[in-house]
Amino acid sequence: MHAKEMLQVRPNDLSDVDAEVLAECIEACFACAQACTACADACLSEDAVAELTHCIRTDLDCADLCEAVGRMLSRRTAYDVNVDDAFLEACASVCGACAEACATHAGTHEHCRICAEACERCERACRRLIDVRRVVA
Amino acid sequence: MHAKEMLQVRPNDLSDVDAEVLAECIEACFACAQACTACADACLSEDAVAELTHCIRTDLDCADLCEAVGRMLSRRTAYDVNVDDAFLEACASVCGACAEACATHAGTHEHCRICAEACERCERACRRLIDVRRVVA
Amino acid sequence: MHAKEMLQVRPNDLSDVDAEVLAECIEACFACAQACTACADACLSEDAVAELTHCIRTDLDCADLCEAVGRMLSRRTAYDVNVDDAFLEACASVCGACAEACATHAGTHEHCRICAEACERCERACRRLIDVRRVVA
Amino acid sequence: MHAKEMLQVRPNDLSDVDAEVLAECIEACFACAQACTACADACLSEDAVAELTHCIRTDLDCADLCEAVGRMLSRRTAYDVNVDDAFLEACASVCGACAEACATHAGTHEHCRICAEACERCERACRRLIDVRRVVA
Repeated sequence: MHAKEMLQVRPNDLSDVDAEVLAECIEACFACAQACTACADACLSEDAVAELTHCIRTDLDCADLCEAVGRMLSRRTAYDVNVDDAFLEACASVCGACAEACATHAGTHEHCRICAEACERCERACRRLIDVRRVVA
Repeated sequence: MHAKEMLQVRPNDLSDVDAEVLAECIEACFACAQACTACADACLSEDAVAELTHCIRTDLDCADLCEAVGRMLSRRTAYDVNVDDAFLEACASVCGACAEACATHAGTHEHCRICAEACERCERACRRLIDVRRVVA
Repeated sequence: MHAKEMLQVRPNDLSDVDAEVLAECIEACFACAQACTACADACLSEDAVAELTHCIRTDLDCADLCEAVGRMLSRRTAYDVNVDDAFLEACASVCGACAEACATHAGTHEHCRICAEACERCERACRRLIDVRRVVA
Repeated sequence: MHAKEMLQVRPNDLSDVDAEVLAECIEACFACAQACTACADACLSEDAVAELTHCIRTDLDCADLCEAVGRMLSRRTAYDVNVDDAFLEACASVCGACAEACATHAGTHEHCRICAEACERCERACRRLIDVRRVVA
């Protein structure tokens, strides 16, 4: 992933944001989207798929929303901090819900364990980015 | 679009939600995503592209987020009303910001005028869905 | 959906393409993406979910790819006909595969019947657009 | 990214595919989608944006299509090798076109240079995966 590198070479000043924290959040969003997509599919291939439908649904939501937020955070032209924060809060919340759903099956399915970790990392990264911004503002 | 039809034939009970209001919100999200994608590209082809970068950026965010929310709302298996509401609020807010950015150029560029209307419809549909749920809850 | 309207008001000349056929393909892609997302979720809520995993997987692929192609077709700035055609062929092929998977369950599940129709419409629209271009080129 | 880890722990047999090559292709698709999204936005912030519209448009296409293909490749349930190959070919072709568009500005804009590299890596990974499959089949 080139998130940090791309932030460093872009024309606009980033003095209002911690590039390290922002890059970690972007990469966590993309990694979480991939893990959730793979976990939903792995669940679909389990014999016990009927017990995993809640997990699959949350995985699909989490993948879509992390991807949209990861893209939005990759954009810095004329950005609107209020819009960003509303989505970071919502993204942290869907990651938390997905981590919880996956954690229920983490003992039985390795893919749920790994996916729960990816969701927790993304939730932390979103909350960290909100906190860092508040200090600056 | 088959949003309403699909809601009516799905196995789960939808008694907690107004299918009409939900279907309108799903369709408004997808229509807004398409209009924003087309508007960003039309702006890119304008001679005055350098004056339209704020509009393009907001269009791209709005397209990504409306699409993610439109997909999430299309799912009803084991849904979590709190996650949904956080994203509906955020989606209404990005649609409002995009409608405002496009409205600035609505007199000069027809694509901005049409896009502003698609964003306003989607903002209204998101707020309507939040309100309807509150009454039920 | 505003696909046709947006094509008509954009700055670039569209003389190399039939706007009617292009707009139908864009709208068919977005409608198919929504129907596939809803069908995958409806399958997930069926008691017989274990028999529907092939259908769910194809629905998810078809949703992702129709959305990407619908967005790409909404862009006309500096477009590359060869790239477009490769994706239209691939999109027609995934729509065909999904229509087939859904048709298997069309007698039992109304959502599969509706989804199969949305996929068939999209497959036709992609093939039509390829054909129309060939005549022009 | 957890692409390889997720492939290794999933229930289905992967004997028909080289997990190393597949994981590299999935990760290259997601990394390319992020780089293209960031490059399009960086171009939008350049003073010379009017000269970069071709690059922006190709970036946006490439981001959407790499993301869709990265998701599709992350799914292994009941997969259809023919559908996959059609999209891998198309994805390699859009990555090649985007690498070329970005390379034109690589001397002037660092973000175009990095993005061209991400596109070239993804093009190679797609072609490698097609080749490896042909040997197996």
